Amino acid sequence: MTFMNPDYLGEFDMIRKYFKREGWSPNGLNIPPSNPYVLESIGDDCALLNALPAGEVLAITSDMLVEGRHFFTHADPYLLGHKSLAVNLSDLAAMGAKPIAYSLSIALPEFNRLWVEQFATGLHQLADQYVCTLIGGDTTAGPLTISITAYGSVPQKKALRRSTAEVGDDIWLSNTVGDARFILGLRRGEWQIDKPYENMTYRMDAPIARIELGQSLIGLANAAIDISDGLLGDLLHLLQASHVGAQVWIDAIPHSSLLEEIDLDLRRLCVLRGGDDYELCFTAPKSCRPEIMAVGARLNLPLTRIGVIQPSVDCEDRLVLLDQHKNVLAADLTRYYSQSFDHFRTLP
Amino acid sequence: MTFMNPDYLGEFDMIRKYFKREGWSPNGLNIPPSNPYVLESIGDDCALLNALPAGEVLAITSDMLVEGRHFFTHADPYLLGHKSLAVNLSDLAAMGAKPIAYSLSIALPEFNRLWVEQFATGLHQLADQYVCTLIGGDTTAGPLTISITAYGSVPQKKALRRSTAEVGDDIWLSNTVGDARFILGLRRGEWQIDKPYENMTYRMDAPIARIELGQSLIGLANAAIDISDGLLGDLLHLLQASHVGAQVWIDAIPHSSLLEEIDLDLRRLCVLRGGDDYELCFTAPKSCRPEIMAVGARLNLPLTRIGVIQPSVDCEDRLVLLDQHKNVLAADLTRYYSQSFDHFRTLP
Repeated sequence: MTFMNPDYLGEFDMIRKYFKREGWSPNGLNIPPSNPYVLESIGDDCALLNALPAGEVLAITSDMLVEGRHFFTHADPYLLGHKSLAVNLSDLAAMGAKPIAYSLSIALPEFNRLWVEQFATGLHQLADQYVCTLIGGDTTAGPLTISITAYGSVPQKKALRRSTAEVGDDIWLSNTVGDARFILGLRRGEWQIDKPYENMTYRMDAPIARIELGQSLIGLANAAIDISDGLLGDLLHLLQASHVGAQVWIDAIPHSSLLEEIDLDLRRLCVLRGGDDYELCFTAPKSCRPEIMAVGARLNLPLTRIGVIQPSVDCEDRLVLLDQHKNVLAADLTRYYSQSFDHFRTLP
Repeated sequence: MTFMNPDYLGEFDMIRKYFKREGWSPNGLNIPPSNPYVLESIGDDCALLNALPAGEVLAITSDMLVEGRHFFTHADPYLLGHKSLAVNLSDLAAMGAKPIAYSLSIALPEFNRLWVEQFATGLHQLADQYVCTLIGGDTTAGPLTISITAYGSVPQKKALRRSTAEVGDDIWLSNTVGDARFILGLRRGEWQIDKPYENMTYRMDAPIARIELGQSLIGLANAAIDISDGLLGDLLHLLQASHVGAQVWIDAIPHSSLLEEIDLDLRRLCVLRGGDDYELCFTAPKSCRPEIMAVGARLNLPLTRIGVIQPSVDCEDRLVLLDQHKNVLAADLTRYYSQSFDHFRTLP
């Protein structure tokens, strides 16, 4: 019974210390970075955000992570703090937004000071990189559930939408995809490999939101989405929103060396349908190629063309997948690889 | 296994139908009320909110409701939808903010079409009253958990804070408090009564956020808080934030007829420490009494003076409670009645 835990701070003291950061610091600095967007933070009935600069609008996104669904029981709380925020920042990145603040609602089965301290450290260390302030939320007892809503600022007329891809656009992907799904399978025992992979587990446990890339693509990309539920499934969402189709060169999609020596079918599964990648997939006119390559070089982030936007012949047939021999994949395989993760339906 | 449920829509179709309201309506109207604050709603990586009118800032609040903690298992989904949003609107009310939009993240143990439809109906029917649009969120499988973040617009310099009560202010309370705690006790079998009380269960199941009152108090009240964790506990938060004390006339605090014939101790427990009331407690200069009475008359909402703000002699002694004989309550009873609900510590 938590009531008896001598380590217990009280709900309000826990909030003040680990979330409001009064008298505690995740990084040796006692004062969180000052944030001009925040007028009122934790402590009143509501937080207050100042008006944004002229021409900017507020981007808002939410992600909820549930124990046993989005992360393993006994997951490292530091990494979990990082990831809970990173998956939200990734959605801001996909709109080209600059992160400014976030709210955290969390249900905890019990109060464990070390757990909360490590979780808060993972959270604030990532947030401080972007001067993205925890401004409020809620704490309750319950099955471990982390619900974050993040706020960003983006130029009103230039936000990167899903719905504005144009026929003829190149389709681009940042970095590589498939590692997170491959590592999940290793941990679940779905498959094995002989070589060590510990240096790659951050790809599943501590994904990097492509914030700088998203902001750099403002004015260049026509459309963008972040890859959270599988590359092709998410691309399909973009195609549907834009009423276009696409040709994708599936065996040219970049993957890390971790996926190099594995079976082609398994690699395609991880790369095309994997999920939890948090890379950006975006479309841009051919004329922007030099500028986009320059962005990649500046950010030291590989950006690869993986296909092209086409007119949509037929809603059932938006995606045409070409293999390494330039053969078109069969429709049933295309459907299989482009099925988004569905929390109520997808079999693991 | 939900996968086999022929009634199942798919996660994305569920969102489109019941949350985005495409081809479905909670109230016979096919089109949700148009909302000038919303630039982009459900369907992209982020929602986008337009810039607020000059001089206004964005108020943000979050509440998370967990099955078995905040509501009984098998709670009516329509009422649950209403309450999940109402408790957030109550926080906006306490700042004097006008609701404009909200995000919903929800974990559901399985997909049940009827449950989702009724939940969404309760949610949207309340939201539409305030043209408060569901703009985004997240859905996942998991233990039933409802996490809402609500957004409102409030004049920057006039938002009702907790921290700005002044010595000499009257302390006001809207309507009555204590019913929700009394009904919870009836349902739990903590106590019984002989008379029917079904006409009062809305006080626990479908609380009314005092939105119009909050907005009407802008420019009149010096400070405000909504009563969610118990009247005295929440008032104590306001006193602490304002560095002041208070004298409260506990037996003059209004209660409904439901609490009329019960034992004084039980009534005090429900009224002073109850929780789940969602009335507003606010402080205002004596000079504002006529205007505040006029607000109450216009809204047909009883507003009662229950005490007065005093200098804070001592942090341990902020609250002085006077009974019906004008005797000061003992310190241990004062502490007992003013203990806020703590999710990790409070015994039921």
